[in-house]
Amino acid sequence: MTKQVNLNADLGESYGMYSIGNDEAMLKTVNSANIACGYHAGDPLVMRDTIAEAKANGVSIGAHPSFPDLQGFGRRKMVLSNDELETMTAYQIGALMAMAAMNDTAVTHVKPHGAMNNMASVDQDMADAIVRGMKAVDPKLILLATAGSCLFKAGIKAGIPTAGEIFADRTYDEEGNLAPRSQPGAIIHDADQAADQVLSFLESGKILTPEGKGIDADIHSICVHGDKPAALAIATGVKDRLIKDGYALTPLPAMFT
Amino acid sequence: MTKQVNLNADLGESYGMYSIGNDEAMLKTVNSANIACGYHAGDPLVMRDTIAEAKANGVSIGAHPSFPDLQGFGRRKMVLSNDELETMTAYQIGALMAMAAMNDTAVTHVKPHGAMNNMASVDQDMADAIVRGMKAVDPKLILLATAGSCLFKAGIKAGIPTAGEIFADRTYDEEGNLAPRSQPGAIIHDADQAADQVLSFLESGKILTPEGKGIDADIHSICVHGDKPAALAIATGVKDRLIKDGYALTPLPAMFT
Amino acid sequence: MTKQVNLNADLGESYGMYSIGNDEAMLKTVNSANIACGYHAGDPLVMRDTIAEAKANGVSIGAHPSFPDLQGFGRRKMVLSNDELETMTAYQIGALMAMAAMNDTAVTHVKPHGAMNNMASVDQDMADAIVRGMKAVDPKLILLATAGSCLFKAGIKAGIPTAGEIFADRTYDEEGNLAPRSQPGAIIHDADQAADQVLSFLESGKILTPEGKGIDADIHSICVHGDKPAALAIATGVKDRLIKDGYALTPLPAMFT
Amino acid sequence: MTKQVNLNADLGESYGMYSIGNDEAMLKTVNSANIACGYHAGDPLVMRDTIAEAKANGVSIGAHPSFPDLQGFGRRKMVLSNDELETMTAYQIGALMAMAAMNDTAVTHVKPHGAMNNMASVDQDMADAIVRGMKAVDPKLILLATAGSCLFKAGIKAGIPTAGEIFADRTYDEEGNLAPRSQPGAIIHDADQAADQVLSFLESGKILTPEGKGIDADIHSICVHGDKPAALAIATGVKDRLIKDGYALTPLPAMFT
Repeated sequence: MTKQVNLNADLGESYGMYSIGNDEAMLKTVNSANIACGYHAGDPLVMRDTIAEAKANGVSIGAHPSFPDLQGFGRRKMVLSNDELETMTAYQIGALMAMAAMNDTAVTHVKPHGAMNNMASVDQDMADAIVRGMKAVDPKLILLATAGSCLFKAGIKAGIPTAGEIFADRTYDEEGNLAPRSQPGAIIHDADQAADQVLSFLESGKILTPEGKGIDADIHSICVHGDKPAALAIATGVKDRLIKDGYALTPLPAMFT
Repeated sequence: MTKQVNLNADLGESYGMYSIGNDEAMLKTVNSANIACGYHAGDPLVMRDTIAEAKANGVSIGAHPSFPDLQGFGRRKMVLSNDELETMTAYQIGALMAMAAMNDTAVTHVKPHGAMNNMASVDQDMADAIVRGMKAVDPKLILLATAGSCLFKAGIKAGIPTAGEIFADRTYDEEGNLAPRSQPGAIIHDADQAADQVLSFLESGKILTPEGKGIDADIHSICVHGDKPAALAIATGVKDRLIKDGYALTPLPAMFT
Repeated sequence: MTKQVNLNADLGESYGMYSIGNDEAMLKTVNSANIACGYHAGDPLVMRDTIAEAKANGVSIGAHPSFPDLQGFGRRKMVLSNDELETMTAYQIGALMAMAAMNDTAVTHVKPHGAMNNMASVDQDMADAIVRGMKAVDPKLILLATAGSCLFKAGIKAGIPTAGEIFADRTYDEEGNLAPRSQPGAIIHDADQAADQVLSFLESGKILTPEGKGIDADIHSICVHGDKPAALAIATGVKDRLIKDGYALTPLPAMFT
Repeated sequence: MTKQVNLNADLGESYGMYSIGNDEAMLKTVNSANIACGYHAGDPLVMRDTIAEAKANGVSIGAHPSFPDLQGFGRRKMVLSNDELETMTAYQIGALMAMAAMNDTAVTHVKPHGAMNNMASVDQDMADAIVRGMKAVDPKLILLATAGSCLFKAGIKAGIPTAGEIFADRTYDEEGNLAPRSQPGAIIHDADQAADQVLSFLESGKILTPEGKGIDADIHSICVHGDKPAALAIATGVKDRLIKDGYALTPLPAMFT
């Protein structure tokens, strides 16, 4: 049996007159796109057109719901009620579904964005609320969550298809969480180092910590970035190594059928 | 065969801490609700909860998409590209569909709001763009449009189910359009006068103008308001007369099956 | 010398079509108004017209800056950089100053709103950032802050005129902070009880805790509410007792000249 | 006496994570900056930092108020009441004044943006409302308006300092208005052609139309763009020719003292 893995990226984050990211290159690199839904980025035209490009490149489509925070690009922590979280998750998924319908295609996964993702990764109540919102819209939607996080656990608990992701360009701490960006070495700038880490995690089925601990992790997908040339080089380097090592790169839905 | 007609109203227009309208009373009066989708009013919680109440009252659910204009309540004219119109219509419908899914029910019609509706009623390109947005999301969605308007024609032309509406509390001019609010007599304040006009239009299948002209009109629904006690009295008065005169009051989907 | 004290309230919180609060009655009750600046409530028309009414009633005008959160009415915690806090405070003050200029009057104080106020009351860095924003716009602006809070301290430290406030309808804990709303007895519903507490604090110059501790507090102003009939009754009851007990009710600027 | 003229540009149009324009180069080119105020672009941090850079370059600071339309970058026509126009103009000016105060400098002119500017150029009521908003905030603010437009006339009529501008990279029609962008030749792509037109207008004190008509115009300033390399080349080319021909390039306030 072929080993398979997925590459995902956050795309469709332009807004009105404002362009951001390198969607064209990334859509040729990844298998699944997390598309902004208008709360932290994206507008109806950007959403429709990003989906069209994703579809043309065989990239599967996911909703990338966020806190309502265009000015902060969804990266500012906000404290909302669980009811708000649940409904705003559903709202954004539904909006993207309509944009997918305009392109005769479908939304197949959901990955929360920015501060919403970070907070729900370590807050089980928030994670459960987001999953309730997803499941209410369509229980077949795949949740894409940091491997081992509260959000990942919420998906498993709710019985929805749940994909674990690791990050290509970040290192991890002893608890298996991302090392904070402020810490030296937290960001990986070298494609080989990134590929080595990704492969060691995939082969072992574990997040390997700096001190050599191995934390069991169900890894389906690798999150890559492309907003800067260096990030794109890492994405491409990781992809090439995965192919060389015999991995089939697969959109998320093909991994859950 | 029983004569049937529909009563519709704009509901779910509260937002965050702000309450507006008299949804509780109106949901006991009408058969179909046009629910704000977050662009001129409404937020995810309001949308979800309004749908729950509509469902509990047997009221069918429609999207009420608008220009993006919370401050102006969607009543300010805006000039958007047709591409923007088409996609923002779809976006709002999709968002409401997700809120309906949270309540195990479905959106069955669409009625544009405020300035978007007024402008599309007399601008065929705008009307066509809105209908393209609707149809792309789901070609079975019923369009609810002013009888005889460009928007109504766009629905017919596109081959989607199209319901014509008249207004209970407004008079019409010689062209069959609503008399401008600024004109004396444009607003009907008396329930009997409103009911008389509604019944004369329904019985004749025509919009009857002040000078007695009859303009053919396909009338499925009557738009009523409930934000002020006087408006609610007209809504109730019209409803009572319709029942007395043998009309079955019916949600929109039942009229298109 | 006459004893003097100030009554303040949050006003001008309507938005577009949405009306909230009971500004007409409150402007006849208080001496200083904290006016929303468009971030959590208020729009340019509401701001201009509220200032006009305040001026007509001899009520002094303050800015009520907030997190940018219309949907959450500024009551949702947000984590912003201090730079953002400082500049958004200044932005809102400047906007209100222009609205005051339209009315040939001036903004004389600033009181942060909702979650921004609550967070800055216990976070010295946030408090300092807000005060920097104020002082940069005009060092003569009076800061209105909870007596004893970090925000109050920030004002004193920065050398700007700083007024301490207590709440008419809330009880305090052993640390001199407001008892959380969830705690039984945290909200005072009786006008006599409210007036008794206010007078005991004023006379002693201390916040008196349930167990009888007295925490020194510089009290210039009493915050009252008017959104519900019961709140307005407390505001009026407290006002009447203060007058009866010989206090002169004074706009904030008169207390700092 | 030295001939003097001003170069102005629209700057500070980034927003949150989104960068746009080439402010660094333009601030070395122009004498006066029209700075976005948060309605179509700009946020408090961008506003503060753009003013700091403008001040450091000796560039005078103007408010660039807009319709509230971030998604459409203020380029979509909106129909607002004159009351709304007047107050939202004042609001934005006041907000920018506070950002200027943070930099120990001052706002000295106002130029409306995009659709607001275009509409007010041909609608005297709108133009008068905008000027009322400006004058209420500070009657010494200089209005920067298209030479010969209704907006220019509104400034003169109101007795406020009023500067007329022409565009470096656009041609004019027989009425002295900008030729519509859709018309061949409407956009000038050649620096020499742009400089020739600018100088012929300045020397004659007239807008010279394609058929050779001369329409009297009070020209104080030339609007240049820098968002694309070609635009920047035109700006620089025009500037070099003006200097070569003996013009002193001057911030707006120096022209009205």
